[in-house]
Amino acid sequence: MAGLWFTEKQTDNYGITMKINKTLHTEKTEFQDLEMVETAEWGNMLLLDGMVMTTEKDEFVYHEMVAHVPLFTHPNPEKVLVVGGGDGGVIREILKHPSVKKAVLVDIDGKVIEYSKKFLPSIAGELENERVDVQVDDGFMHIAQSENEYDVIMVDSTEPVGPAVNLFTKGFYAGISKALKEDGIFVAQTDNPWFKADLIQTVQKDVKEIFPITRLYIANVPTYPSGMWTFTLGSKKHDPLEVSEDRFHDIETKYYTKELHKAAFVLPKFVQDLTK
Amino acid sequence: MAGLWFTEKQTDNYGITMKINKTLHTEKTEFQDLEMVETAEWGNMLLLDGMVMTTEKDEFVYHEMVAHVPLFTHPNPEKVLVVGGGDGGVIREILKHPSVKKAVLVDIDGKVIEYSKKFLPSIAGELENERVDVQVDDGFMHIAQSENEYDVIMVDSTEPVGPAVNLFTKGFYAGISKALKEDGIFVAQTDNPWFKADLIQTVQKDVKEIFPITRLYIANVPTYPSGMWTFTLGSKKHDPLEVSEDRFHDIETKYYTKELHKAAFVLPKFVQDLTK
Repeated sequence: MAGLWFTEKQTDNYGITMKINKTLHTEKTEFQDLEMVETAEWGNMLLLDGMVMTTEKDEFVYHEMVAHVPLFTHPNPEKVLVVGGGDGGVIREILKHPSVKKAVLVDIDGKVIEYSKKFLPSIAGELENERVDVQVDDGFMHIAQSENEYDVIMVDSTEPVGPAVNLFTKGFYAGISKALKEDGIFVAQTDNPWFKADLIQTVQKDVKEIFPITRLYIANVPTYPSGMWTFTLGSKKHDPLEVSEDRFHDIETKYYTKELHKAAFVLPKFVQDLTK
Repeated sequence: MAGLWFTEKQTDNYGITMKINKTLHTEKTEFQDLEMVETAEWGNMLLLDGMVMTTEKDEFVYHEMVAHVPLFTHPNPEKVLVVGGGDGGVIREILKHPSVKKAVLVDIDGKVIEYSKKFLPSIAGELENERVDVQVDDGFMHIAQSENEYDVIMVDSTEPVGPAVNLFTKGFYAGISKALKEDGIFVAQTDNPWFKADLIQTVQKDVKEIFPITRLYIANVPTYPSGMWTFTLGSKKHDPLEVSEDRFHDIETKYYTKELHKAAFVLPKFVQDLTK
């Protein structure tokens, strides 16, 4: 284990460890500790408050699965909001959908955007696209002030500690419902079922009380705790399991496929049990 | 990070780390380094040559997915062979199928069996069941000497280093074909697609040359590298994707479901590409 290693304790008693070639930038921003490092295995990596946010090597899984599942479920998404997601990966995926005229990104921490552009160009490269409106602002407040505006809202937040704690509340989901148009869809990352079963259950319960269609789907993100990540989807009208074949169009992906769009909702039994 | 921690470097530059409450047993057997430890997060854990083999907390994923996919694919499995698998987890799952009259386990290392019985009783508890025949022997040789004997063969091996290196060869798969009955099925664990893509591709190619039906499926095993594990299935006649609904019967599981039986074969694009 010679050299510099980074270890994220994903629980008190277990974690992931990676060899670091060099530190690219560290800063205590107004909201969180930001670290950008070059790893030997995963390429450049963004850490917030000591937690892995994204790496160049495996980022495609999370970003594709956040973006394409709701965007292919909606018949004609034109205006899309990303809350958080300052690294720009979800935005990059959204722009693969020609129907989208405007993608608004609201991240509370401008430093995440600034250093992602600098050190994660393959992820953040579309943040200056003319179809994108980047706002450094409080996503919770942005949602509270929006009404009947968005076709799809994606919550690409950190864990429910620090600046993201409001983004896991029932009030926030009610605000999202108000901010969505009458057939709108939202998706939020909701951590992993091995160590955050309570969180997933609570979010499922809260979202079900607001959205007639509530679903949970999963993807394998190797640098996130347990490698199995969940996404909670709430929809006013369109069911992700009933997308017609002709809705899909070809996009370049490394993880998402139209077959996986549906298979991602077929859950292992202990995960399925969290949705009841 | 106070106290004793175990770290498995899953590649040269990345790994998993776990807090250890105490060491239960360590021994250099005739074939490999065996360590049994009590972890704070995952319960008791078996290590072979420094690699995580199984933990009490997440073992159900691997053992259920090895056993139930081929056993529900076969219309009437009566005689089943497990190569490796001395911890007994696959055997425990096999016995949930009433059609199985005899399950033979052939592990080269009797010490794995001995210490699994002692320290992993919830996993190894069925090894003395009267439907089970435990043999401490070389699985490669056992296969070479068997002909038209088994309905299902499961290869629950370590990685292709050390004693398991022969179990990832085309000659071995040809032997398995010979050892199977005319409508037999086999499954083998084939590591992860993030770091062992070459291995998966080679095995797919080799198995395709021997078995008319060759498939790859996946499951989330958090304590294995990347959290995404693959299983290669070769079948002479029965397709796991065409199991009729009435073939399934209720068994108690925590991961496997009849819906997941099929969804596990729907692969992320970069994994699907390895099967072409």
